[in-house]
Amino acid sequence: TGVCFTRDAATGEDQFMGEYLVNAQGEDVVAGIRTPLQITKIGSQRWAELAGIKEDDRKANYPSLEEAMPEIYKELDDYQIKLENHYKDMQDMEFTVQEGKLWILQTRSGKRTGAAMVKIAMDMLKQGMIDEKTAVLRVDPIKLDELLHPIFDQDALKNAELIAKGLAASPGAATGKVVFSADDAAEWAERGEDVIMVRVETSPEDLAGMAAAQGILTARGGMTSHAAVVARGMGKCCVSGAGTLKIDYNAKQIEVNDIVIKEGDYISLNGSTGDIYLGEVATKEAEPDADFKELMELTSKYSKMSVRTNADTPDEALTARRFGAVGIGLCRTEHMFFDGDKIIAMREMILSEDVEGRKKALAKILPYQQADFERIFEAMHDLPVTVRLLDPPLHEFVPREEKGQQEMAKAMNVPLKKIQQRVESLHEANPMLGHRGCRLGNTFPEITEMQTKAILGAALNLKKRGITAIPEIMVPLTGILYEFLEQEKVIRSTAKELFEEAGDSIDYKVGTMIEIPRAALTANRIATAAEFFSFGTNDLTQMTFGYSRDDIGTFLPIYLEKKILKADPFQVLDRKGVGQLVEMATEKGRAIRPDLKVGICGEHGGEPSSVEFCHMVGMNYVSCSPFRVPIARLAAAQAAINHDE
Amino acid sequence: TGVCFTRDAATGEDQFMGEYLVNAQGEDVVAGIRTPLQITKIGSQRWAELAGIKEDDRKANYPSLEEAMPEIYKELDDYQIKLENHYKDMQDMEFTVQEGKLWILQTRSGKRTGAAMVKIAMDMLKQGMIDEKTAVLRVDPIKLDELLHPIFDQDALKNAELIAKGLAASPGAATGKVVFSADDAAEWAERGEDVIMVRVETSPEDLAGMAAAQGILTARGGMTSHAAVVARGMGKCCVSGAGTLKIDYNAKQIEVNDIVIKEGDYISLNGSTGDIYLGEVATKEAEPDADFKELMELTSKYSKMSVRTNADTPDEALTARRFGAVGIGLCRTEHMFFDGDKIIAMREMILSEDVEGRKKALAKILPYQQADFERIFEAMHDLPVTVRLLDPPLHEFVPREEKGQQEMAKAMNVPLKKIQQRVESLHEANPMLGHRGCRLGNTFPEITEMQTKAILGAALNLKKRGITAIPEIMVPLTGILYEFLEQEKVIRSTAKELFEEAGDSIDYKVGTMIEIPRAALTANRIATAAEFFSFGTNDLTQMTFGYSRDDIGTFLPIYLEKKILKADPFQVLDRKGVGQLVEMATEKGRAIRPDLKVGICGEHGGEPSSVEFCHMVGMNYVSCSPFRVPIARLAAAQAAINHDE
Repeated sequence: TGVCFTRDAATGEDQFMGEYLVNAQGEDVVAGIRTPLQITKIGSQRWAELAGIKEDDRKANYPSLEEAMPEIYKELDDYQIKLENHYKDMQDMEFTVQEGKLWILQTRSGKRTGAAMVKIAMDMLKQGMIDEKTAVLRVDPIKLDELLHPIFDQDALKNAELIAKGLAASPGAATGKVVFSADDAAEWAERGEDVIMVRVETSPEDLAGMAAAQGILTARGGMTSHAAVVARGMGKCCVSGAGTLKIDYNAKQIEVNDIVIKEGDYISLNGSTGDIYLGEVATKEAEPDADFKELMELTSKYSKMSVRTNADTPDEALTARRFGAVGIGLCRTEHMFFDGDKIIAMREMILSEDVEGRKKALAKILPYQQADFERIFEAMHDLPVTVRLLDPPLHEFVPREEKGQQEMAKAMNVPLKKIQQRVESLHEANPMLGHRGCRLGNTFPEITEMQTKAILGAALNLKKRGITAIPEIMVPLTGILYEFLEQEKVIRSTAKELFEEAGDSIDYKVGTMIEIPRAALTANRIATAAEFFSFGTNDLTQMTFGYSRDDIGTFLPIYLEKKILKADPFQVLDRKGVGQLVEMATEKGRAIRPDLKVGICGEHGGEPSSVEFCHMVGMNYVSCSPFRVPIARLAAAQAAINHDE
Repeated sequence: TGVCFTRDAATGEDQFMGEYLVNAQGEDVVAGIRTPLQITKIGSQRWAELAGIKEDDRKANYPSLEEAMPEIYKELDDYQIKLENHYKDMQDMEFTVQEGKLWILQTRSGKRTGAAMVKIAMDMLKQGMIDEKTAVLRVDPIKLDELLHPIFDQDALKNAELIAKGLAASPGAATGKVVFSADDAAEWAERGEDVIMVRVETSPEDLAGMAAAQGILTARGGMTSHAAVVARGMGKCCVSGAGTLKIDYNAKQIEVNDIVIKEGDYISLNGSTGDIYLGEVATKEAEPDADFKELMELTSKYSKMSVRTNADTPDEALTARRFGAVGIGLCRTEHMFFDGDKIIAMREMILSEDVEGRKKALAKILPYQQADFERIFEAMHDLPVTVRLLDPPLHEFVPREEKGQQEMAKAMNVPLKKIQQRVESLHEANPMLGHRGCRLGNTFPEITEMQTKAILGAALNLKKRGITAIPEIMVPLTGILYEFLEQEKVIRSTAKELFEEAGDSIDYKVGTMIEIPRAALTANRIATAAEFFSFGTNDLTQMTFGYSRDDIGTFLPIYLEKKILKADPFQVLDRKGVGQLVEMATEKGRAIRPDLKVGICGEHGGEPSSVEFCHMVGMNYVSCSPFRVPIARLAAAQAAINHDE
């Protein structure tokens, strides 16, 4: 009895593979209790190499089905080719041999890793089995995440001690402290430890522990074992069937080649190769392979929407650009008030009692902030960068604890009492709904003025160096047309002055976030002035539901359990409510300004079902965190293919 | 030169009246620098009586125009009758006499007190000058407020020492500490003191002080003086022209009939009679007069909407009923968890770690709460009472300060630490958007169960006594259909059980607040289950704008000043944004359930422009605080008259 895949479910390699056990049921193979034999000779040889078994030994004691029952194997091989050609997808087949006769018990599309998903889709495309659109539809966007998972840093790896090998059950690199039970895995992870869960084999009770662990290592069980299947489903690094490990639950240790690894010791796993290393090995981000790149090119061919990124630093911008982001949809500027000397000037501004004092303090921040923008614009040269003006409430910039307040008082040479009074006066009952966003810019227009100078000043500097910056200035938290108009006035007049001084100018746009329900409801008014809309669906979800994201912990889990909500609306965009506002605002905005550029920059911009909705609404782009860019690109292409035919 | 009114601008009495000064400009009469003479003999006699001037003296030294220039007076009287008949409204005329010839310089509809507004409208209706609709439209709803202003408690008045009399310049009763400048009035009021602003005469610089004061008293100036005109405009109690007072700004004192009143001493004013009392005299609410009642009857005749009240106690309910409220639109139940022993049981519930513990604690609250409902239902017998289930977050029921926590620990016999931990765990970053409303009822359904028992149990008890209660149970803060369905399930099943036990039943409705934007957007879904909608426009405004009412102080005044907002949206319903949601929800709800009862219970329910909007949207009723009921009734009638023809 055996289980086989028409292609490699882990790597996608076009290689028939599978495992079988003599005198056993299919579930025994899957359960991983006994190490099964391989179906193909090549598979058997690969397995033996990993397990450190000599060819003679292998042939004699672990023969493949191909060697042991060549005729049955031939018949099985014919079936797998026929079935795959029929279904035009990789098949997961279960079979049994009774009295010399082969019975195919079941066939279905096989589960696979993200890497396999991409490779199989692209291989089948090249093999002429499926067309481009089908290839694009074959890949689950969420699974792409696995391909973007960390790999080991090559330099760190050179010094790493390889102690054993197992099966490359689920790709990615992981490093963490050894624990021997699911409970420990969950518990240690809860307190912030990275853990590798080590088991002889796993069972469904281990699920929570597996989810909490960085990686999973088992001594028994093949590529179709519980550990391997579940880890792939989770997109989690897993090395299975590392038979050389002696795992002792009671002593809480692993013995392998005279090395003893105790609970809490670091090990590192490469789920893409099966390598097991002693100690902590630094990981780094993945490099996409050729198939992945080709798939991404296909997504561009079929997408109607483009994909931008939410990036606040040049590094993030470059990562996203590598993944194919064609601009920054959200560059937050909060951190540009925080680092180093800037926070001192920012606090000086906050303590100032008049415009002049605030302007003086802001003038100190200007050069730093301009330099920040230069670096980001340079990284994103020739692509648009949407910069959001200062958004958070001012109390986020002052220390809440007395110790910090004392330091601030000392640094600024003002009495502690004055600091405390100001901090107190900045306190808000509901900061989410308080003095933030363009409410800041409209009460302290000098902030908007300084930021405009920094943004456009940076672009002018780059222009001198022959680098094209395409800045889009975004007003946050607009709820009223006149709020936007007041901010636009400050931006345009500051720009005019700056351009006159410089004797040069920059093309720039002024647009707004749509994140307040009222902005969506009155989008036709706001679009009379705003050149673009970017939906901030995080805040829009908070206000449309009346949920504070920080405070949903007491009821949201119960709502999900009781099925009052089908999904967390902060993860999957709520089409019926929030989506209705998004659609309404897009329609109202475009009715006034047909060429209105519309995008989304909430976390939903990287979630496939939400991306599909954005396509349906007719957005120009979605913007998401750098590592979600490929997911968004694929989801956008799928949405276009699914909805436009 | 003189100013005259075709009817009494203070009381509305159909009596020609006015004042004149010889050798003066019109503005001198208005400025109140010199005490003017009366136009009519009867007016002159009334004035003399107040001023303590004997008839002989009056005739000789303060003759009326009627006596001094009978022919001119006759001509003026003819004009005033002609002009009023022409304009069909009370006229404010300015005239001058030059070389024995009368010149009418100007005529316009005269400003008047709320009382005069009602009396003049109803008199003109009876006199056949105007029709019913015009009479209704003649009264400014906001001015009705004045009629509902406090009057002196009759018992308290018996013991009050009358020290002087002035002109009844603007009605109402006021009591407070004497201050002698507008700045002092504003400053003292700022720190919570009730003040009476005493001036020889007032000028436009005194406006802020007048607004801050409980009442205004002047020694000089007539019924048309600055103080009198402005006070009537503000609906503020004013006694003017009390010539017997000797006001000394330097010594900060008043001398009158050998009595010395110093700054900070209490005096009391009756703006409807002109009486001035020494000391503090208790005030009480107004009793509406016959004209007022007739006007209210007219409003019922023309209104399409009915007016309910927001009332949490039997007293409030009775007051509102007296003003013509035909039900309670919002009965909050928070206070029913607070008073006396209830708060102890409530805290016990909050500290309970399981359902059984919570149920046990709630069972203690049940009889108190049921008794509360019985009293309210009895006060509102035969009229519907919409009861809102528990709404505020639980942390409002536990003490925030350590002192209170220690008391709580002692009272409940649990360690302080446990109390503190629970209080800490209830803390929320944005309580407005946190665990409250039906999120409480859905996580702790036992609260909903207890409240349902209390509401319907109360109604059953009254039924036994032959009193009809019409309870409507209202689920707060619904945002998702399933939230409502879950609560409805608890309510219906609890009711069923209760009715079976009692062998009797009560007709009741289950509906919901619409105060979350998502509820308005998905009203067609919610209306499949909810039997009525009540717009909670306070919260709906908070979420639609993204404003926390507690935190707008830092930017809203600037927004109003910069005209980013035309009005405070918490006072005047924002038609473009919030109103759009209200209209959408009403339409969507009625599309599913044509007989859906729709009302409003936010503070906007008593604001005339908002009431007009509710009429335009087609609501069944508005609900407002008891003293705003007449205002809402009038505004509803005016809206119906203005929009339906």
